[in-house]
Amino acid sequence: MTLNTISLPNKTSNGVFPHSKTQMKALVYHGPGEIDYEEVEKPGIRKETDAIVQIVKTTICGTDLGILHGKTSSVKPGTTLGHEGVGIITETGSAVTHLKVGDLVIISCITSCGTCDYCKKQLYGHCIDGGWILGNLINGTQAEYVRIPHADTSLYLAPKDVSEDALVMLSDILPTGHEIGVINGCVKPGDTIAIVGAGPIGMAALLTAQFYSPAKIYMIDLDENRLKMAIEMGATHGINTGIEDAIQRIKDETPDGVDVAIEAVGVPATFNICQQIVRPGGHVANVGVHGKPVSLEIQDLWIKNITITMGLVNTNTTPMLLKTLVSGKIKPEQLITHHFKLDEILKAYEVFENASKSKVLKIILSN
Amino acid sequence: MTLNTISLPNKTSNGVFPHSKTQMKALVYHGPGEIDYEEVEKPGIRKETDAIVQIVKTTICGTDLGILHGKTSSVKPGTTLGHEGVGIITETGSAVTHLKVGDLVIISCITSCGTCDYCKKQLYGHCIDGGWILGNLINGTQAEYVRIPHADTSLYLAPKDVSEDALVMLSDILPTGHEIGVINGCVKPGDTIAIVGAGPIGMAALLTAQFYSPAKIYMIDLDENRLKMAIEMGATHGINTGIEDAIQRIKDETPDGVDVAIEAVGVPATFNICQQIVRPGGHVANVGVHGKPVSLEIQDLWIKNITITMGLVNTNTTPMLLKTLVSGKIKPEQLITHHFKLDEILKAYEVFENASKSKVLKIILSN
Amino acid sequence: MTLNTISLPNKTSNGVFPHSKTQMKALVYHGPGEIDYEEVEKPGIRKETDAIVQIVKTTICGTDLGILHGKTSSVKPGTTLGHEGVGIITETGSAVTHLKVGDLVIISCITSCGTCDYCKKQLYGHCIDGGWILGNLINGTQAEYVRIPHADTSLYLAPKDVSEDALVMLSDILPTGHEIGVINGCVKPGDTIAIVGAGPIGMAALLTAQFYSPAKIYMIDLDENRLKMAIEMGATHGINTGIEDAIQRIKDETPDGVDVAIEAVGVPATFNICQQIVRPGGHVANVGVHGKPVSLEIQDLWIKNITITMGLVNTNTTPMLLKTLVSGKIKPEQLITHHFKLDEILKAYEVFENASKSKVLKIILSN
Amino acid sequence: MTLNTISLPNKTSNGVFPHSKTQMKALVYHGPGEIDYEEVEKPGIRKETDAIVQIVKTTICGTDLGILHGKTSSVKPGTTLGHEGVGIITETGSAVTHLKVGDLVIISCITSCGTCDYCKKQLYGHCIDGGWILGNLINGTQAEYVRIPHADTSLYLAPKDVSEDALVMLSDILPTGHEIGVINGCVKPGDTIAIVGAGPIGMAALLTAQFYSPAKIYMIDLDENRLKMAIEMGATHGINTGIEDAIQRIKDETPDGVDVAIEAVGVPATFNICQQIVRPGGHVANVGVHGKPVSLEIQDLWIKNITITMGLVNTNTTPMLLKTLVSGKIKPEQLITHHFKLDEILKAYEVFENASKSKVLKIILSN
Repeated sequence: MTLNTISLPNKTSNGVFPHSKTQMKALVYHGPGEIDYEEVEKPGIRKETDAIVQIVKTTICGTDLGILHGKTSSVKPGTTLGHEGVGIITETGSAVTHLKVGDLVIISCITSCGTCDYCKKQLYGHCIDGGWILGNLINGTQAEYVRIPHADTSLYLAPKDVSEDALVMLSDILPTGHEIGVINGCVKPGDTIAIVGAGPIGMAALLTAQFYSPAKIYMIDLDENRLKMAIEMGATHGINTGIEDAIQRIKDETPDGVDVAIEAVGVPATFNICQQIVRPGGHVANVGVHGKPVSLEIQDLWIKNITITMGLVNTNTTPMLLKTLVSGKIKPEQLITHHFKLDEILKAYEVFENASKSKVLKIILSN
Repeated sequence: MTLNTISLPNKTSNGVFPHSKTQMKALVYHGPGEIDYEEVEKPGIRKETDAIVQIVKTTICGTDLGILHGKTSSVKPGTTLGHEGVGIITETGSAVTHLKVGDLVIISCITSCGTCDYCKKQLYGHCIDGGWILGNLINGTQAEYVRIPHADTSLYLAPKDVSEDALVMLSDILPTGHEIGVINGCVKPGDTIAIVGAGPIGMAALLTAQFYSPAKIYMIDLDENRLKMAIEMGATHGINTGIEDAIQRIKDETPDGVDVAIEAVGVPATFNICQQIVRPGGHVANVGVHGKPVSLEIQDLWIKNITITMGLVNTNTTPMLLKTLVSGKIKPEQLITHHFKLDEILKAYEVFENASKSKVLKIILSN
Repeated sequence: MTLNTISLPNKTSNGVFPHSKTQMKALVYHGPGEIDYEEVEKPGIRKETDAIVQIVKTTICGTDLGILHGKTSSVKPGTTLGHEGVGIITETGSAVTHLKVGDLVIISCITSCGTCDYCKKQLYGHCIDGGWILGNLINGTQAEYVRIPHADTSLYLAPKDVSEDALVMLSDILPTGHEIGVINGCVKPGDTIAIVGAGPIGMAALLTAQFYSPAKIYMIDLDENRLKMAIEMGATHGINTGIEDAIQRIKDETPDGVDVAIEAVGVPATFNICQQIVRPGGHVANVGVHGKPVSLEIQDLWIKNITITMGLVNTNTTPMLLKTLVSGKIKPEQLITHHFKLDEILKAYEVFENASKSKVLKIILSN
Repeated sequence: MTLNTISLPNKTSNGVFPHSKTQMKALVYHGPGEIDYEEVEKPGIRKETDAIVQIVKTTICGTDLGILHGKTSSVKPGTTLGHEGVGIITETGSAVTHLKVGDLVIISCITSCGTCDYCKKQLYGHCIDGGWILGNLINGTQAEYVRIPHADTSLYLAPKDVSEDALVMLSDILPTGHEIGVINGCVKPGDTIAIVGAGPIGMAALLTAQFYSPAKIYMIDLDENRLKMAIEMGATHGINTGIEDAIQRIKDETPDGVDVAIEAVGVPATFNICQQIVRPGGHVANVGVHGKPVSLEIQDLWIKNITITMGLVNTNTTPMLLKTLVSGKIKPEQLITHHFKLDEILKAYEVFENASKSKVLKIILSN
């Protein structure tokens, strides 16, 4: 079956799919500092549980920049990057039963077999035959097509009448903010919370924290533009750490400390803010990806009955997030600042790299 | 007053106590390295919610050694040490309603007003008019008498027909091991757990972990005698870190790591063992009191979906522990290795200091 | 004393209250069908833990109508009714430490000693020296003054700058809807829920359910006016059971059933709707006060993995609700449809009795 | 592949497998009251996710008696009964990846696709392509061979060196008692619990409740022999309802009531005992399969803050149970009173029907 034979009413606007052959275009990593958007072999089914998805929309993640900068040794040269996106299924392995050709699907950044001990505990991020493999151990979504292993448990059927842009936010960023920030942090009605880092993932935590009606949300960042966006998206207070001392400000306004501190950067300084501002009995939920150890001030914290969590997203709340999206309880389009065509992806990487200047949060790339 | 004058079999009925004298003996801290068992003023009721308790049995805690070594700046010279014990109420303030003169009670190491925001969340350790104050901010239990503020919520009526020695273990050590080690660590049936540190608190975690039927319990320590005791108390494996590398041994036998690692020492090396051996999705429950920061290897752990907890005991599970004690589900007497009279307390401190040589775990001091 | 004599803008500073007289006005129950607003003895401190509160605002509860109709045998003739209200402390017993004369306080409908086994589990509704006693076993709040036992744990200091009308809703109705409806029902983001009964308590469940961002909220009632109000307060669907079959409608629109069904009436027919519409794995949270048994269709339900909860409010979430109120996350004034002066209370009872005609939801009575 | 070609060292003792053809023996239901052990067609792979299992051991469940008595209309004549057993995989579909021919496996009574919304919530009992289908909607395990759909998620690899008899108890009875009785009932250390019904499922609840160290376990039944067995298996008290009033006895000994009441019969009288003896804040966990409604005494219970649960087993705790079994924390062989060969199954049904006379609890049928 080729795309030409699918009649997908108005789903993809470009109409013509010139790659009903064996080649396609993809963003390929060639080693630190080197990526190119080039012709590669189109993926095909390898296992009965695979599906091939034609990308409709994809995006770039901070993790992709980390790979580009040579920080992720697991990614080998020659790999197509990207682990987010929505697309249309063009082919399914014989054991795929819940999805069919023509379905519009959200690609989870986490591949899950649904069968191993970790999957049975909903720790899909640690699936022994999956986890974060897209754009890492296998070719990813910044391409015209992608092969998705364990399709039945790694793709989510898109609801009707929801913006595809919004759906792309459900591949990674919203479940990450929700699961690793908000749920791990146990945000409750009336809580005072702080989110350290107003990047895409901090903003995703900000949006999803509001599911649980905290009374006060402090957003802490260096970038005035992002703080302004955060206030628009529901933060009640912004603290610019370039101007004032976040720890002191929180102590002045909330002497006991915050109920929940969400770390959404991944460096020692931001982790430190979190451990300094959390109240007795409170939670520090680390979402940031760290490159080196942090000093845990346990000589002060041991007595404070705090809980520190950290982890990779499982995307187990994706079905819940879909329901909130359909019902309008969340508007993840707010996170999207820039749009490009997929073949402009190299330019999009540049824009994304220069976030402060370009005022970018999330980019949508349309195929 | 000496023990000889108490008629213990009828202890609640005698009504009249010869507590007219104004002096008593107590173990007083006089600054780093200096303690003495001396004549001091007998405590009296200061607030309507106070009770005076005549100590029947008390003990010495590792924390008391810390104070003696000058590590606890909150303790001022002149303070009577001790925060554990059982005794008989000899006087009650006018607002004490749940307890009466003659009652045999367990003294919680945590004083709780029952009214503040922290108490309402069962975080009694952070009570704004209590917490750990006995033998710290106010005079403690290593004395013939002690004044207990907020008696109704800080004392527990002793059940009948239970050994007083066993009850002393409920003042601090058992709830600490249970709440901060076992409950915070979420020990579940079938789990593989490790306890790092076979001192009294590690042993308390060992005893109370068995409430939840873990499959394997590794006890890790340097002291062969304590490892042997741990095996007798239910540990399934002992690892002597003087002989072998605990991290390697766990990795060899449990490649994914342990479900729960309980830190019961309070130094960087033991915390490090815990963070190295915990499995994805697992728990590190810190019980040890730390004097300096630890290096949190978050560059490896961020992806592992682990939870790290720490805190001061709340003694909110004391009623539960009492029920398990009465029904024989736990035998805390196993923790007691030595007995002294209260007036031999200076000798008892010496024995307790030299734990390795004296093979002491917990000492009972009888008044 | 009348409202004219209270200088409310300075209410905490005036110090001197003209409460020397010994009589006051109160709504007294004299047996089934008989209430009067009459002169009675002004209450005084009886125990050290009591406080006397001068009522500023109170209200009438459905439970009060039940008492009036002779349904509550525990209420003896001669009792002043009412268990809700805000007021100013005019006198405190000597053991009251957290509150002082002049404080504006919310009176919890539940009296709690803070000390008994039930209070320690936050089951204040079952406090052995409290629970629901106001306007039931002891004189209540529909009076100029009320004596509140265990004041420290049964009164909540009112935050500043919040409408007293709104605060009255925190005495009973909001915590009841929240704890017994929403929290017991485990409402989660994205859920489809149904609330059966759009009376005050159903509306309180409706308001507090939105803390947790359910996707769809069905409100089910017979009264078109109340359904309209429910839609204004956030329900997404209204079902008028006088016009259509609620069970069939839910089955048509949500074939698997609702995640949570909240029963807020207290008769067999409404309970039956709940058990018929709940999905496998779902929750039925009963809030209604029932007068007779219901038929539990366990021959169908045993296989459905449902959880049925029921209970008296504990008001343990009152501090949380206060924080949501201060931060504007909830606007309980929406529940208030009518205002009267306290000395018009007999008229207010009439209005409240004829809810359908008068379109009353909650009444505020001002002293 | 035929069985003759598998070399299974000592796994099956009978050695000769005469059915390496197309026929086998099976216990077939022919309508109410009619079963026969007869020659039927041997099952083969139908879907890529199927496996064929040669039964090593199976058993008879109370549910099978219900079918025999015509109570389960979903079971059509011609169906092979049975939903429990251990066996050896003789054939796998091409999409089965976690298991292979020759593996000794436990057959879960619940078939689970691992992919649908219910499976993702671990509500395997409600799997849209599974649930309880074995010996109900498709042929079951009381046969020489059985076809298991969704083999990867519906079979559990047996640990080494564990008795096959014990493993059969993990197909249904132990997870049912554990999940629907003990976990739903929230049994905690120190609790007083009651189990109403000392049949196999009540005994499974008894064994698994002890994972959580309750202080007192009342077993309530009419059969003195079973009560005696219960005491041997860990019950602390037995109440023979033929001799004394269970409700009165509990009220006398535990005035507030029990923390958890587990219903393990499935008739109104036993449900009623549970609702009468549960304490405020307690749990009623219904495990019994009911044939008619029960009267829920909600006019008394509404105020008691109780939780009532009910449901079909999910077998999501089977991996946990396997770990407790391997470590010796549970000895389910205690439940087995009788052994037969599979071809004696008609006799075994007779014995099982006459439980009181035969003193049978669970039967093992060996192929």
